[in-house]
Amino acid sequence: MKKLINSPENVVTEALQGMEAAHGDLLKVHFHPNFITRADAPVPGKVAIVSGGGSGHEPMHGGFVGRGMLDAACPGAVFTSPTPDQVHAATMAVAGGKGVLYIVKNYTGDVMNFQMAAELVLAEGIPVESVIIDDDVAVQDSTWTAGRRGVGATVLAEKICGAAAEAGQSLAEVASLCRKVNAEARSMGIALNSCTVPHVGKPTFELTGDEMEIGVGIHGEPGRRRGKLLPADGIVEMLMDPILADLPFKVGDEVLLFVDGLGGTPLIELYIVYRKAAELARKAGLKVTRNLVGSYITSLEMAGTAITLLRLDKELTGLWDAPVLTPALRKGV
Amino acid sequence: MKKLINSPENVVTEALQGMEAAHGDLLKVHFHPNFITRADAPVPGKVAIVSGGGSGHEPMHGGFVGRGMLDAACPGAVFTSPTPDQVHAATMAVAGGKGVLYIVKNYTGDVMNFQMAAELVLAEGIPVESVIIDDDVAVQDSTWTAGRRGVGATVLAEKICGAAAEAGQSLAEVASLCRKVNAEARSMGIALNSCTVPHVGKPTFELTGDEMEIGVGIHGEPGRRRGKLLPADGIVEMLMDPILADLPFKVGDEVLLFVDGLGGTPLIELYIVYRKAAELARKAGLKVTRNLVGSYITSLEMAGTAITLLRLDKELTGLWDAPVLTPALRKGV
Repeated sequence: MKKLINSPENVVTEALQGMEAAHGDLLKVHFHPNFITRADAPVPGKVAIVSGGGSGHEPMHGGFVGRGMLDAACPGAVFTSPTPDQVHAATMAVAGGKGVLYIVKNYTGDVMNFQMAAELVLAEGIPVESVIIDDDVAVQDSTWTAGRRGVGATVLAEKICGAAAEAGQSLAEVASLCRKVNAEARSMGIALNSCTVPHVGKPTFELTGDEMEIGVGIHGEPGRRRGKLLPADGIVEMLMDPILADLPFKVGDEVLLFVDGLGGTPLIELYIVYRKAAELARKAGLKVTRNLVGSYITSLEMAGTAITLLRLDKELTGLWDAPVLTPALRKGV
Repeated sequence: MKKLINSPENVVTEALQGMEAAHGDLLKVHFHPNFITRADAPVPGKVAIVSGGGSGHEPMHGGFVGRGMLDAACPGAVFTSPTPDQVHAATMAVAGGKGVLYIVKNYTGDVMNFQMAAELVLAEGIPVESVIIDDDVAVQDSTWTAGRRGVGATVLAEKICGAAAEAGQSLAEVASLCRKVNAEARSMGIALNSCTVPHVGKPTFELTGDEMEIGVGIHGEPGRRRGKLLPADGIVEMLMDPILADLPFKVGDEVLLFVDGLGGTPLIELYIVYRKAAELARKAGLKVTRNLVGSYITSLEMAGTAITLLRLDKELTGLWDAPVLTPALRKGV
């Protein structure tokens, strides 16, 4: 295991200390329990948005805390759900009197722990809504999930709902918007190699020199099948075809095309993927009016990519374009 | 070789097509010869700033083209200098009547080819100044260089000089500023593994399972020595000590701390590196007032990190803070 770490048990704490040192102007990092809030939290009169999940997917979610996006993020251990007390503490730190939205990726532990936190918070009289993100078309159930996994749509929902909350929308409105983003988004990913969870010390799965995992999950959980490595264009077709078929997207739809890197894939390759994905979207009659290219949801050092398509309308486009000021996403400020 | 590519000979062209498709609002991509310009180039009455170098270091330089940074970038083949005709064509496309600054990393091919382009451009009556960036303290000469290599200071110089050009400074002023950034910056990097140039098909160098290359170059060229892998904090000390000693930085100096990922290193590890680097800077009496954390100068999928310290004054801080709108760096717009 070759990593820039000191010891497996300190990875999350030290990375959080690094975030605090680097982004103290935007964020406050809290320890025991661990959570990250906007520096100016709580923001009175605004719906607060809280997300979280296992660490190892950076910049998600801590890198998305800030004006116009998340109020708080709860990082669990690597690839491990945050605990209910983390989510509860984060919620109490950011609730601004207008209720709290939990954006939860559909993994069994995350769903359960955010649910337990919601019960604690509701008992204290703070209104909470939870929206489950499950945009990954690769598999229906998985080793980590009942139903589909939550992946790329999470970032888009956090950005769009963050803008809506900033604009003063109510909890019911922001939650409804979040469900809409999830309903209009589809994703699928592929891995060229595995990743190593620090405290495990060996790769999560094994791929031979010419194999890829098609439909891989963000913890390395199995996808649809394993196949021989193809040229990039063939890989992009294998991701775009199920995505396009699933919603289904229709001729004339405006879409946001998000090409994500899984952590070990360089940007030059993501642009090769983007080129083909945009071409296939055009051929399907879609109009790519917005995009995002980069490593925003990662799986430690896994090499690979994931594609997300989000159908846009005027409302979603406007909220996507709204100002945002976070460590990982910045626009208009 | 496991990469998201179609064929080694098409990597650069297809990545440029992807950039064009993704960032057509900010950039124009030209082919044969290949160069990228601001969408609104030439900007009349502004010093134009042109940089370039081998591909495989993305987002450098194409991702830094846009308002407040570069007017043009010239991408060569992977790890190969751009040709004089690329640089010449890019220059003619962006020269806005106030002269052109070339920001050139100190690699033999880059220096020679930018020099030849400068002669062509000067012959057409356009004033050109070239500034060579050579901030890497690892080695004095290298397989690719007479003198020190140019690394992290390049991004900082491009941002700072871009802001100065935008503010209306003259060519002499912007060139002088660029020399100042280079003079006030020091860098050093480390690799945990190698990278594979697509048309070569095998790793540039070989590291065993527990080795690291200390002072590695951005093309995988040898550094100071090879050593056994250390915990992150030990690695950061091995990078910070020579950096701090070289300028030398002094107690009370304000600095920008830039922690770069080499392409295959996930963000969670970069924050662990940042944490220790910031701590060592503080212990040396420095005040880290600005920072940058992310993969901005990469070496394909190489795992590793590089640290850059830039001594700031009021002028450099103000220009660093100025608005910038590029695919890879965005602030205030």
